[in-house]
Order: sequence, then C-alpha cells, then structure tokens
Amino acid sequence: MVTGFSIIGGKPLEASTESRSGSIYGIDPATGAKLEPAYHHASVEDLDRAAKLAEEARATYSGLSGRERARFLRHIAAGMEATGAEIVGRAHRETALSEARLKGELARTVNQLRLFAHVVEEGSWANARIDPAQPERKPLPRADIRSVLRALGVVAVFGSSNFPLAFSVAGGDTASALAAGNPVIVKAHSAHPGTSELVGQVVCESVRACGLPAGVFALLFGAGSELGAALVAHPVVKAVGFTGSLSAGRSLMKIAASRPEPIPCFMEMSSSNPLVVLPEALATRGTQIANGLFGSFTLGVGQFCTKPGLVYLPRNEAADALVATLKSLVEQSQPSAMLTETICGNHHSGVAARKRNGAVVTLAEGAASPGGSSAAPALFEVRGSEMLRSPELAHEIFGPSTLVIRYEDRAELLALLNAVEGQLTATVHGTDADIAANIDLIRVLERKAGRLVVNGFPTGVEVCHAMVHGGPFPATSESRMTSVGSQAIYRFVRPVCYQDFPQAALPDELKNENPLGIWRLIDGEFTRAAVASGVPESAGKV
Amino acid sequence: MVTGFSIIGGKPLEASTESRSGSIYGIDPATGAKLEPAYHHASVEDLDRAAKLAEEARATYSGLSGRERARFLRHIAAGMEATGAEIVGRAHRETALSEARLKGELARTVNQLRLFAHVVEEGSWANARIDPAQPERKPLPRADIRSVLRALGVVAVFGSSNFPLAFSVAGGDTASALAAGNPVIVKAHSAHPGTSELVGQVVCESVRACGLPAGVFALLFGAGSELGAALVAHPVVKAVGFTGSLSAGRSLMKIAASRPEPIPCFMEMSSSNPLVVLPEALATRGTQIANGLFGSFTLGVGQFCTKPGLVYLPRNEAADALVATLKSLVEQSQPSAMLTETICGNHHSGVAARKRNGAVVTLAEGAASPGGSSAAPALFEVRGSEMLRSPELAHEIFGPSTLVIRYEDRAELLALLNAVEGQLTATVHGTDADIAANIDLIRVLERKAGRLVVNGFPTGVEVCHAMVHGGPFPATSESRMTSVGSQAIYRFVRPVCYQDFPQAALPDELKNENPLGIWRLIDGEFTRAAVASGVPESAGKV
Repeated sequence: MVTGFSIIGGKPLEASTESRSGSIYGIDPATGAKLEPAYHHASVEDLDRAAKLAEEARATYSGLSGRERARFLRHIAAGMEATGAEIVGRAHRETALSEARLKGELARTVNQLRLFAHVVEEGSWANARIDPAQPERKPLPRADIRSVLRALGVVAVFGSSNFPLAFSVAGGDTASALAAGNPVIVKAHSAHPGTSELVGQVVCESVRACGLPAGVFALLFGAGSELGAALVAHPVVKAVGFTGSLSAGRSLMKIAASRPEPIPCFMEMSSSNPLVVLPEALATRGTQIANGLFGSFTLGVGQFCTKPGLVYLPRNEAADALVATLKSLVEQSQPSAMLTETICGNHHSGVAARKRNGAVVTLAEGAASPGGSSAAPALFEVRGSEMLRSPELAHEIFGPSTLVIRYEDRAELLALLNAVEGQLTATVHGTDADIAANIDLIRVLERKAGRLVVNGFPTGVEVCHAMVHGGPFPATSESRMTSVGSQAIYRFVRPVCYQDFPQAALPDELKNENPLGIWRLIDGEFTRAAVASGVPESAGKV
Repeated sequence: MVTGFSIIGGKPLEASTESRSGSIYGIDPATGAKLEPAYHHASVEDLDRAAKLAEEARATYSGLSGRERARFLRHIAAGMEATGAEIVGRAHRETALSEARLKGELARTVNQLRLFAHVVEEGSWANARIDPAQPERKPLPRADIRSVLRALGVVAVFGSSNFPLAFSVAGGDTASALAAGNPVIVKAHSAHPGTSELVGQVVCESVRACGLPAGVFALLFGAGSELGAALVAHPVVKAVGFTGSLSAGRSLMKIAASRPEPIPCFMEMSSSNPLVVLPEALATRGTQIANGLFGSFTLGVGQFCTKPGLVYLPRNEAADALVATLKSLVEQSQPSAMLTETICGNHHSGVAARKRNGAVVTLAEGAASPGGSSAAPALFEVRGSEMLRSPELAHEIFGPSTLVIRYEDRAELLALLNAVEGQLTATVHGTDADIAANIDLIRVLERKAGRLVVNGFPTGVEVCHAMVHGGPFPATSESRMTSVGSQAIYRFVRPVCYQDFPQAALPDELKNENPLGIWRLIDGEFTRAAVASGVPESAGKV
C-alpha cells in the first residue's frame, strides 16, 4: 500500500516531476535497516499546487455544517481503525515504539477525531453571541450585533517524530483544524514516512467518500528547512500547527513573523516538566514515587514532551532513600532504540554535556548501549545552589534521563522554581497538608506551566474538554492555547461579527430561532433559547 | 492638576532624575499653541522601576477575586466621571476634537470599565472546565482534569492618538487587561499628554482607594521608538495592546517576536473599510446613502480606524447620482483641525499621492485649508480596472477622504473585493433581495474583515458582548481577537489546567460546589450546577 509519493489533490504525486530532488527513507531504528520505498521530496511547485487546491477547497469546506464536518472526521476515524493493523505495523518498524503503545496511540488518535466530531456536531463551541438591537436606546440606538467563530483558512501541520499518529498526519492539529473548517496541508515527519502515507491515504479516501473537494487535504514529504519553510511562508497558509524541537520551531516562527502577512504559529517545542516532592509525601510514599517517576521518565524511551526531566528533592534521608530506589532502577535498566539516529545522538550529546558539568553527579546509568539508535536511562544529581548558577541544566534533554536537584530549604526551592522557564507541565507530590503549606509554590508553578499535576506523573495527557497541553515559551509559542483536548480547535478560528444582518444571510449559529439548538450568549446571558420575539427582526432592513 | 510627570508606584516621577532627556508638549492643533507643562521623557531606568513594581504587584493583583477587581474598575469609572469636565476640557485643547464628541467618548470609556467590571464580577467569562475523574474507566482510569483562565502577567498598553480616552490610558486595552488580573504599564501617546496624566491620576487614586499595590498601574511619557520599544522588549512584560499606525505597530511586533521570550501583540493598525452599494439599495436610497457616507468618512475629521475609505459603485446612472450628491457635500465642506501636525501632514501626503496617480480623478475637495493642522474633505474616483493595477490605492489614508471605485460588473466587483487586504470592517448596502443575490460577495467579505455591517456605517463601534473590533492583517496583528467589547479580555489570559488537585488548592472557579455560581463546562455540558457528588473528591489525595 505504501508508494513513496506525496499526496496532492487526492492523488499520489508520481515521481516523474523533474523539479523534485532528494528522497527520504523510513529507517528501522532497532536495526538501522532502510525501509522501502523511497519518499521523493515534494518541490516548491508541488507545494504551490497543493496550496492552490486547498484555497479552492476552502470556501466549500468552511461552508459545511458542523454535522457534515463531523461525518468526515468520523470517516477518517473509522478508516484508521480499519487500516489499524497495517498502520501500527509500519509505525512499529519506522519508530521502534512497541505495538502495544502504537495501538494505544491509534486509539487515542481515533478518539481525538471523534471528540472533535462531537464538538462541531453539537455546535456550541462556536461562541455564538447575540446583542439584539435596541432601537429605542438613548442617546443612540443600538444596532443588532452578532458574532461567531469562523475558519481561518488553510492550515499547515507539521508531523512530529514522537507521536507518529496522535501528533502527525491525522493527529490533534489536523483534527482540530479540519473540525474548525480549514483545509490542511501536512508536512510529514521524515522519521515515519510510510506511516504518514498510510494515514494520508485514509484521509484522502474519506475526502472522496464524503464528496469533499480534493484540496481539503494534502500530504507532502520533504525537508523541514526547505519544504517546511516554504510551507510556512506560503501566502495561502493562514496558521501553523507544529510539534518538534525548539530550534526548528523558533526558525519557523521567524518565517511566520517575517511574512508580508504574519500568521499565527502554534508550536509545541520544549519542556523539562519539573516535579516537586513535598515532605509528608516524601516521608510516606518515597519508594512509590520513585517507581512511578522511573516509569514516567523512561516511558517510550523518554520521548514524551511531558517527560519529567527535573526532580526537586530536599537534602534529607527520606530523599536519599527515594534517590537510592531510583538509582537501583536505573542501574538495572536496559537500552532501547530511540526514534531516530539523530534523536539518539542528541540524547547522547545532552547526557555528555551534563557529565562534563563539574557540579553534576552521574548517579546511575543503565546497561551500555549496543550502539546505533539505542539509549539507556541515566540519572543525574546537582545541588540547588549549583543549579541556580547553571540555568542551562534545566533545558530539555529528549530521552530517558532525568536530573535530581537537591535543595537546602523552602527558600531555595522557591528560587529554583522561580528560575525555570515555561513548561508544559509541573507536578507536585504532597499530602493535602503538604499542599496547604505550600500554596506559594503552587502559585509559582501556575505561572510556569500549562498543566499542574498533583500526585501523578505528567506523561499521560488526557484528551478531554479541560485539558491544557500548552504553556509559556519555550514550552510553546502561544501560551494562550492548547494543542490537546477540545479547546485545541480555538487555534484555527477567528470571530466574525455581523451587524444588522438580515436573518437569511446570517450563519445558522446566529439566526434568531437557533436552528442548531446551541448554547449562545444573548445580551450577556448563556441560553439555548431563541432570540426573544419583540426584537425587531427588520432592524437591519432598508 | 497636570504636572508634567510620568507616574510610577502611584507617585509623580519628579523631574530631577538625570537620566531623563527630552520632553513632550501638548499642542493645540487648532492654534498650534504649545500647552504647558512640559512632559519629561521617562528613561529606561524609570521603565525598569515601573516594571519591577508591576511584577511585584502581579501576584497580589492577579489573586484578587473578580468582585475585587470589579470594585477597582468601577472606582476608576466613577473617578473619570467626577473629573470628567477637566479631562474633556484638556482633551479638547490637545486634540481639537469637539467637547461633545469627547463627552461621548468619556461616557463610552466609563461604560467599558463598567462592562468589564460586570463581566469579571459575574465570573463565567473565565471558561471554567471540569472533567471529573473516572477511576473505573478502562483501559486506564481518567484523572480529574480542570482548567480556567488566568492572568498573563504585566501588560504594556500604548495610548492611541485618535481616541484620547477610549483607547488610551484607561481605555479598552487597560480596562480589559486590568479586568483579567494583569498590572498595566501605559505608554502615553504624545499627542495628548495632559489628558493622559489626568486619567492616570484617576487610576492611581483608585489603586490607593482600593488598597492595591501601587505597581498595578504606571504611566510613562516618552518616544515610541525608544521608550515604547524598550517597553515591548522588557522581560517583565507578557503582552502588548496597541492602536496606531501600521509602521509603528509592525516595528513593535518585530521587537516582540525577537525577544528571548516572544510575547503576544495585539496591534490594531490599518483599515480602509470597504463599503459596497448593491443595485436595489442604490436605486432606491442613493441620496440617503451619500449623506450617511459623507457623515461617516468625515466624522471626527476622518480620524476613525473604521472610516469608510473605499466605496464600490457600479458605472451606472444611479451611482452617478450618488456620486454627484457626495461631490456636492464635499465641495461645500470646510477644513477642520486634525489631531496633530504630523497626522495632518500624512493626510496631505496621502492625498497628494492619489492626485499624482494618473488613473485617479479628484472629484471634489472642501474649502482650502488655512494651513497648520487643518484638512478638508476630499473625494476621489478610480475605475475598477485601474484599481486592480494599483493595489496601493487601497491603503489607508487617515483623514477625511474617500475613494470611489467604479466597477464594470459583478465579476469585477468580486475581483476587487478579493484583492483587498484585511480590514476591521466591511459594509454592504442592499435590500434583502440584493443580499440574497450577493451571498458570494458576503462570503468574500467574511474572509476580509472582523465586522460586516449591513445598511449602516462602520464608524460607530458598539461596546457589547458580540462586538469584534479586529480583523486580518494589516487591520490587526491577531485576527483571532477583538480590542472592543467584552471578548477583549481574552487577549490577556491563558488557560491553566489542574490535574487531581485537592479542593482547597483549586481556584474558586473550579471548586466542586461552584462557590461563584458561574457557568462551567462539566464533562462537555454547560451548567451552573455543582460537580455531582459521587465524584471521588479525594481522587487526587495520597
């Protein structure tokens, strides 16, 4: 089923075009074996064609009802389930992630699509607001003012390396952009081209089955620095969703900001996910926390953006015991293949840089790697006072390592937490009494992270309405948004206001009788009621 | 009451500091007379001090309840009313805007403050979301996930020239940022320093009266290119609100994007506000539309960001008649003082550039200006085909002029509208039948503007819940937001998520019993109910 071609206009982009150069192979990280077929780079001309088709599809697609978009999303979900075995098999070969993990990720991806289908079918997400006319108001009458969220336009999505399904071709960015009514152009991540193509085929099949214009979706293979940069710079593109490294994210942000028309970028980039253990929890649950923490920072070979990479512990015996448990777990651990040779190399460089820092103690490492793309867990420790002098130690190292920071007292702990950069998550282990005694610490973490976790581990990200997977820079480029959960849809819409419009020309969300039965804010009050009669329907008429 | 000093920490910044250089005078645009006192430039050190105090005030201020913040906003509103005569008098001298207009603007400013007070006191704006734990869920239990909007941090606000009250020191940006829980540092516009100081004194007096930390508000005088640039670059500042020119806005956007930690910028910059007259409306109401349009584009000497500067008419007799009426109104018009000599000079340059364009016909000009800062209305015309060749003709000219574009047919009209850049508003005059026959045109305008007006004029901007005063670039830097109406508060907040938190440590908005009585989204359903008992309150406990 995999062909090695980008997909534009619903069709494989056959390799005959002269302007394409270079190619990408999937690599099995466990063996280093090259996986057929070769994926040819799409050219800038190919991108232009995809963009043109997307822009042509925009009007039709954004004009669909929520119900119709929901049908499309559910079709993609069902298609992914039907092709699940093939997708998971290929993803396993391309990423070395376990089939069990990938099956879970597939289920999550499908759930995401269905969550957004539910949200747009129900319709209240669209923030419909109606302030009816007040023709008798003094000193001036009030016009009839209504507003609702509308699709932004073509959205560029960058597949991520570490979630080949949930943050890639039909992942959360694509699902939320499509749900909102935007055509999507995906730049596939080069680490899993076959997986990307298989999922892309499912999306295209759904486009056809739902009778949508073929430009609604395109999948392009190419280098981030060339094709990716051209995608962000393309005038048709109105927003960007990205999950990846800080350097790649920041360079795309610069391109987006330098365009003649700057566009919003939603980049999830870098997070070290501080974890604090408070005294009572430490005294009563140290071993349990050590076990959970080890599981969390080594989960998926540490390749989660929410991996806890900074662990704050006091200098006391209870903490020594927790560290000893952690140490023993790490010492007994085995190396595993990471996603790519480059990612593994970066992990080794990060670990090597830590070891070069004279203030850092290497507490434990797992069994030596057999080379290639394999890495074993590693555990480091540093004194709080040294950490304050070496803020670079707080930067994310993507992979199965973590750094224990031993602080002297609460004042030093607060200073350390105040010094951390923006994070996706921050975790506190504590009894209710611990937390009551450390509300100031919670207040600091609220400013630093998008999600605060009590007595858990940050690596599980629930896909739900209240989830915030975001946070201050450098965790993301836009702390005001989330890339996981139903609120992710708000990245790809803008409000449009209608003043004194005739009923027939209003979007259904704003019509007096509330044909969609959605929640609306009428004169500042939430209601599902129709606009009260007595409001002059002809306020805007000639 | 005016002293000539910036205000930091609630106190006038006495002029003795050596590091300050340069000064600003208010100028009466009607006479060119310099108005005492001199306003000394705040230095970068002064800014540092204001920022330090603002950051110190942040924790306390953002932790206040909505009720307490509402009290503060209402105190400012009452203070502005009490000082209204002095404020309006000074503003009249500094801007040459009429006292009637300024009284109306004062009332609007006060209403804005009270609208935001109402919004944060009621509390449902905060988008509280609760997905209760599902400990029995398979394959994995669900944690308890809750999220709510929290203040971003210190906000920089730039006063605008054209709304010395409603978009300045205690205008919509300041009111919404304060309502959301952010300290504010205002860079006063140099065109109305005395007005700015008077309003700043009112805000400071309210800070004192409400017992808030003095750093909650500061007012600084200085040059945009120096003090303004330093303000946007300051590490303590987490967001920017700005209304002004495209060039100034864009240069501040670049600074914000180049910071080590980029910050969101909400810049309202440039809009020409296209207005289209459809056939039946033209045939039946041409004269009425001409009168309304003349009033709208000359209102406040054309110094509204929503001034209709592009008027699309067919080449037929009904349109000739409308143009003849407009022409006659312009010919009879008199010059008026603009806000500043620079603004007036820019208007004259813009008008001169239009006259130099061989395709543009100057249909009419008002009586010759006596010089100084005065400008008279001007009316231009161009053929649609020429307009398509000279897109620069669509750029905003701030001041009392407008350009009539005569199109051949619907296809040309659609091409012309497709070619316009992002706008704050777009207006259509048409009967219901006109609009039904031109839905494609409405769909084009939806993509171009934040607000669509039917059978009205765009210059009145209602302050209400459904208002959108925003639009695609270059109208604003962030089409997803509005700077007018209650939704403006969403610029200055970000969501924070709480996972498995003990009740006592949750913000009030998220506590099970709903102590604030606000609307919340529980498991995806809007409700004001408490979280159902049976939800394990101790899900997050040790």
